[in-house]
Amino acid sequence: MSKVIDGKAVAATVLEECRREVDSLKAKGVTPGLAVVLVGEDPASMVYVGSKVRTCGDLGIHSRKIELPTETTQEELLKVVAELNADPAIHGILVQSPPPEQIDEEEIVRALDPAKDVDGFHPENVAKLALEDPTGFVPCTPAGCMRLIKEAGIETSGANAVVIGRSMIVGKPMALLLMAKGSDATVTVAHSRSRDLPAICREADILVAAVGRPEMVKADWVKDGAVVIDVGINRVEDPSRKSGYRLTGDVAYEEVAPKCKAITPVPGGVGPMTIAMLMKNTIAAASRA
Amino acid sequence: MSKVIDGKAVAATVLEECRREVDSLKAKGVTPGLAVVLVGEDPASMVYVGSKVRTCGDLGIHSRKIELPTETTQEELLKVVAELNADPAIHGILVQSPPPEQIDEEEIVRALDPAKDVDGFHPENVAKLALEDPTGFVPCTPAGCMRLIKEAGIETSGANAVVIGRSMIVGKPMALLLMAKGSDATVTVAHSRSRDLPAICREADILVAAVGRPEMVKADWVKDGAVVIDVGINRVEDPSRKSGYRLTGDVAYEEVAPKCKAITPVPGGVGPMTIAMLMKNTIAAASRA
Repeated sequence: MSKVIDGKAVAATVLEECRREVDSLKAKGVTPGLAVVLVGEDPASMVYVGSKVRTCGDLGIHSRKIELPTETTQEELLKVVAELNADPAIHGILVQSPPPEQIDEEEIVRALDPAKDVDGFHPENVAKLALEDPTGFVPCTPAGCMRLIKEAGIETSGANAVVIGRSMIVGKPMALLLMAKGSDATVTVAHSRSRDLPAICREADILVAAVGRPEMVKADWVKDGAVVIDVGINRVEDPSRKSGYRLTGDVAYEEVAPKCKAITPVPGGVGPMTIAMLMKNTIAAASRA
Repeated sequence: MSKVIDGKAVAATVLEECRREVDSLKAKGVTPGLAVVLVGEDPASMVYVGSKVRTCGDLGIHSRKIELPTETTQEELLKVVAELNADPAIHGILVQSPPPEQIDEEEIVRALDPAKDVDGFHPENVAKLALEDPTGFVPCTPAGCMRLIKEAGIETSGANAVVIGRSMIVGKPMALLLMAKGSDATVTVAHSRSRDLPAICREADILVAAVGRPEMVKADWVKDGAVVIDVGINRVEDPSRKSGYRLTGDVAYEEVAPKCKAITPVPGGVGPMTIAMLMKNTIAAASRA
């Protein structure tokens, strides 16, 4: 009945493209390089950083993992960023979020060379996204969502798209991508202050949930035949699992999926796309350098 | 029945605030200064520039009008911008749009010192708007619309706001302002590619029309009790007028007004606010310098 959008498969396609692009850059004497900076020992961050570095290895992208102690100061981190900005072997720089609390993350992002800001969070890249200037870097998660929508053959032009969440990491960039010329969706940004969120969501041909609340979006929030993109990755307790928890999205998948034209599962939907798009951005940075 | 939002009166209030702020800056030895650059002899631009300079004079803001010939080159204009960037008596710089066709307007905007970009079009100010960083300059027309909504006592939190138009001059910044924390509206951006625009508009508690099509928004596009902000200023032929034309908004005012809780007329609604917010931005630039 419902078409599950296989994020792993689409990510594999993107990574295959990446591999070819890396080969062609290497043939021109350029090896793309990504620096991943991890401050402290947050377990989830360590997992993410590990898989980014591993994916680089798989594709033949040069990677540098820089692990700094939890007590690293702002000045020390700024110095690392400055060194990486100046390093010609490094085309992309990523400082894993969230850093320890003594770090002013915004200042770190502003210190990045915008041409190496493969996360797309530097103000120069934020502006380019709003201005529809294709020379910027688009944040990886919304870029991955757009790619999933395209690969699933979903027409965005004239569609009613509803984005739940207004963060600069997902919600706002997603809205800007969907309303941009070429995508041409009618875009509604809803959030915690929205009145009658279920009614707003029921108008959506394309519904993007990016709020971080487990299974918030219920079946009666979704129009028959809608496309649902679930950005949430939430841990919920589950005593039946050995780990004691399971991962779930912002969408109540079991009840919503039967109504959908297409839906992304969690895990295996948007998640795998984020790293794939990071690789894309790193290669783009190298090819522009 | 319907409450007309008097843009002239609100603009007068804003200008009164401005006058006090200018006096207080002068008492500290700072005279705010605005440079207005006009390239060529477009009649409408000459009128706009004239009224900006005159308003500066009324408030005690120092103004410099720089009139350049139609055949001015990009390099010559960039040189003027560089001089104004370096001039300590000038806190705000405005290059009147549209310039002649040989001018690359985007490059001119990027050449402005962002701290003097009182139009709010420089990428650094675009990013600050998206990032909800209050140290940037907000484009004058959407800033004026927000002020009108506030002065009219309209609650934006949780309201359904629909913005028709997705330009970086009005539509997108208006959407970002309405969805920002503190305003907290649910925001839909609709445009020429939107399917069933009337139905989308009928959902709006607050409807902002910024498309430039005379009287496009009809009575049956508007919910009873909606607030309508009409950004359009269109010339339409009118043989009954001595001038041969009249000004009309994007909203069919006569038929829409009776349904509204509040509505801005054209002229006398959003129009007078744009210059007032330009003065506000110039004073803010001077007070930060």
